[in-house]
Amino acid sequence: MSTEQPRERGRPSGRRAGESGTRDAILAAARQRFADTGYDRASLRGIAADAGVDQKLVAHYFGAKQHLFVEAVGLPLDPLVVLPAILEGGDEAVIAERLAQGIALVLEQPELHQRLTAAVRATATEPAVARAMREFFPDQVLPAVSHLLGPGDGRLRLNLFGSQLVGLLMGRYVIGVDPLTNLEAKAVGAAVGPTLARYLVGSYALPTGN
Amino acid sequence: MSTEQPRERGRPSGRRAGESGTRDAILAAARQRFADTGYDRASLRGIAADAGVDQKLVAHYFGAKQHLFVEAVGLPLDPLVVLPAILEGGDEAVIAERLAQGIALVLEQPELHQRLTAAVRATATEPAVARAMREFFPDQVLPAVSHLLGPGDGRLRLNLFGSQLVGLLMGRYVIGVDPLTNLEAKAVGAAVGPTLARYLVGSYALPTGN
Repeated sequence: MSTEQPRERGRPSGRRAGESGTRDAILAAARQRFADTGYDRASLRGIAADAGVDQKLVAHYFGAKQHLFVEAVGLPLDPLVVLPAILEGGDEAVIAERLAQGIALVLEQPELHQRLTAAVRATATEPAVARAMREFFPDQVLPAVSHLLGPGDGRLRLNLFGSQLVGLLMGRYVIGVDPLTNLEAKAVGAAVGPTLARYLVGSYALPTGN
Repeated sequence: MSTEQPRERGRPSGRRAGESGTRDAILAAARQRFADTGYDRASLRGIAADAGVDQKLVAHYFGAKQHLFVEAVGLPLDPLVVLPAILEGGDEAVIAERLAQGIALVLEQPELHQRLTAAVRATATEPAVARAMREFFPDQVLPAVSHLLGPGDGRLRLNLFGSQLVGLLMGRYVIGVDPLTNLEAKAVGAAVGPTLARYLVGSYALPTGN
């Protein structure tokens, strides 16, 4: 196995069998560790040991633990990369349009929305996955975007964003309601983009402690 | 069992054991029929036969099939009653406020949100329940509110409304994300009320057929 090859974090493609096997072994070990201990307590050292590889190889394939987590739980896009790009520079209307396009892109590609729906199903049905997700978003994703979010509690903004995304995937792919299930991806993006933008950067009635 | 007693559709309360048993038998038969055949093909006659009671008794306890369905699948509020009341007379801001109060009311009462979350779980995991729900909302609920919805496809508006409601319940009760899980009911209502109002009556980019 060559360590000269550039680091890849995308899908396997034209990779030699040995490399693909090592990569899969690391992902399987990571999935198990994240489920067993949650995100915070899972170490790259432990994951490497479980997979029977050197820890450097884990970093070579996946970079930081955050990125390994994204791959291990099957998120099709890395929120640490995608969310800052969507939120950087632009008012609520611009961000709504970017979110509409992002949603359309995910829904147009079966590979992307199938992985995302699988991650939602796992989060909803496996308490261990839910725990890891509950640690990952506030601890890892929030610091990368908190300065780009609207006023108030950024964790709540991400919660609300996630609630609409989860509900959309449930309605379109899990429950299968008509016409949402058959609607073209762009129309779905246009419908939910402004909701997602409002949750992330817009003003809404914030908790007042009453 | 007296047939003089006024019709009740609420929760059992102070009802004699025989009545409660009959009512439960009808609900169990209805659940099974709706799951087996879907909403449209389930008949009150067949449900009564399965429960071993006269069909008139089903009507006495539950009224029309629509209301029996609402009780059988465990919806805590009847959308045929609640939605028209929320949508009747009032602009988008007024309706958003009513929706915020309605959501707060449901979240404040464990009995209500537990039943609603159970219905969401059943819809997401049991294809037969999903099918009955997919028939019930466009065929029964939509005609009762279509004249009160915004322009465009009313079914899609109900789909989007449902998607945010499902995502909210998933995030707050099934996945359990913080702070959404611990946030006071009124603050949650204030956060999602405007989203729900926009989906039902507001303007959003409608499908353009591109």
